[in-house]
Amino acid sequence: MKGKSLEDIGEFGLIEIIKKKFNIKNNSSIVGIGDDSAVIFKSKDDHFIISSDMLIEGIHFDLTYHPIKHLGYKSVSTNLSDIYSMNGFADQITINLGLSNRFSLDAIQEFYKGVKIACKEYNVDLVGGDTTSSQTGLIISVSAIGNVLKKKLTLRKTAKKNDIICVSGDLGRSYIGLQILEREKSVFILNPEMQPELSNYKDLIEKQLKPKARKDIIEKFNEINIVPNSMIDVSDGLASDLIHLSVQSKLGIKIYEEKLPILKSTILSANELNLNPTTCALNGGEDYELLFSVNENDYNTLRENDIDITSIGYFTSNEKCVLVSKDGELINLKAQGWKHF
Amino acid sequence: MKGKSLEDIGEFGLIEIIKKKFNIKNNSSIVGIGDDSAVIFKSKDDHFIISSDMLIEGIHFDLTYHPIKHLGYKSVSTNLSDIYSMNGFADQITINLGLSNRFSLDAIQEFYKGVKIACKEYNVDLVGGDTTSSQTGLIISVSAIGNVLKKKLTLRKTAKKNDIICVSGDLGRSYIGLQILEREKSVFILNPEMQPELSNYKDLIEKQLKPKARKDIIEKFNEINIVPNSMIDVSDGLASDLIHLSVQSKLGIKIYEEKLPILKSTILSANELNLNPTTCALNGGEDYELLFSVNENDYNTLRENDIDITSIGYFTSNEKCVLVSKDGELINLKAQGWKHF
Repeated sequence: MKGKSLEDIGEFGLIEIIKKKFNIKNNSSIVGIGDDSAVIFKSKDDHFIISSDMLIEGIHFDLTYHPIKHLGYKSVSTNLSDIYSMNGFADQITINLGLSNRFSLDAIQEFYKGVKIACKEYNVDLVGGDTTSSQTGLIISVSAIGNVLKKKLTLRKTAKKNDIICVSGDLGRSYIGLQILEREKSVFILNPEMQPELSNYKDLIEKQLKPKARKDIIEKFNEINIVPNSMIDVSDGLASDLIHLSVQSKLGIKIYEEKLPILKSTILSANELNLNPTTCALNGGEDYELLFSVNENDYNTLRENDIDITSIGYFTSNEKCVLVSKDGELINLKAQGWKHF
Repeated sequence: MKGKSLEDIGEFGLIEIIKKKFNIKNNSSIVGIGDDSAVIFKSKDDHFIISSDMLIEGIHFDLTYHPIKHLGYKSVSTNLSDIYSMNGFADQITINLGLSNRFSLDAIQEFYKGVKIACKEYNVDLVGGDTTSSQTGLIISVSAIGNVLKKKLTLRKTAKKNDIICVSGDLGRSYIGLQILEREKSVFILNPEMQPELSNYKDLIEKQLKPKARKDIIEKFNEINIVPNSMIDVSDGLASDLIHLSVQSKLGIKIYEEKLPILKSTILSANELNLNPTTCALNGGEDYELLFSVNENDYNTLRENDIDITSIGYFTSNEKCVLVSKDGELINLKAQGWKHF
């Protein structure tokens, strides 16, 4: 097929093109393409939120090292992350599965065991979906349905100047976990007698194979009555997701390398793999942490409470997204988007 | 992977296994796995309905003869059919796309042109989704969100004894259209100089490539204030979908071969292809017509109005599903489910 390639325009370029062609027309459509979830009118006090994601074997996961049960869990938790990042809670999911005939019933049941663990942990019901055959492997498409109080709905586009930018948990761990798994896979392919040596990397690998969605952070916001000014989940990588907030809020961003929450184990393993831990934190992706902004007052309230977040910088008025390195150098942040095409 | 194969248990067996393991727990989950759409609490008067489907290249469509614009349309209309079959109306859709690098931006834009035509025709907004890369071809997963008044919600499991079974439009046409397209493809592969001769089969091919969802039937129900006792859309094939109604309503079904709505052009082309038109109508699938049941009073009201439906039989109390052939023979109906594995 002729014409411009998808590589030329990239993932975010494609989304922009689609978004421009599809205006919202129904009164019940509150937020359309361009945030973590779509928002639909429910009542005068609350909204429905819908998110949807697709995971494809060979692109998003490798079953040679990804236990299919963990994959079931991850398919759900990563989707729910998009509901939490709207400051709402998920209630239902649907799962569409494409299966090639190499999958046994046992394997599929393992997958659904992982789904069930996630359903229980996040208090959601599996209410539907589609199962079909596929020629080449496993394809998973999950949609999540949630609820948010109107006054608590948090979008990407509503950050305020001088807002403090915070991120939950730690960054780069999932990416390093993936690199470790890929390394052990290569070793195993060269020498099938070798058993993989993964016990030293447990927390890294766990973050890659069964990441948690940060429902606990949203519960804490509720408990202490904090509504962030803007929020997104870190799935593409901190840099990309910061740029989404910046572009949509029409503000600049300044973050500090020394403030990035990177675990010691992540740094050690990054060094072992000859990777720069900061680059992994900025561009690794799949962290499924919440990245949000609050004003100074709210930030102080958050600090007084026991909440697993770190402030990494603030919003500025100049529309530039920069990282201040440990040496005080200013480095422009760059979006990654797709790496697959 | 060891154990029982998916072929052993089939599509409907798998759905039953999943359904049994996932009880509904949240109060807002009204109907879970097992109907055309899931139903979610909205307000005291109305519900949300959610349906989700996946289409995979090489399994559900063949781009050598399926114009990608029509495919965009069909991805939406076939999904909306599951919303209409709950007796509700759709308001929003999300689309997840998996794309291999053989697709140009032009091709993707053509796809979304078809999506847009469907959005306009059915009055729905595209509000989100996910675009990702795929290794092998095009993967489409669509979720639709709709609304239904509580008192109008129509399920599969609520047919009543002696209800008259009706189906909209005609049957078997889409399947014959597919056979014609496959035949012309084979001819073309053998002799690329030959131009396909499709003009005689326009209505058959159109039904296969861009089937309409029967929103008009639901509008008519609303206009004349009829609420069917049970309903499903004919996607797997009339026989399979009748059996769904029968099993879930715990009733038998008797339908009459001579009453099946099959167009003359379908019969002629079936004969040309050495296919039995009745078998095509029963098991062909992809009709996307509405199959529903009403009591005799409501049936008489429907007859007095200009509505594109045909009565084909009725519900019985003996739990058997039979077709009365033109010769008066009783033939048990059989479900098809997946043919792909």
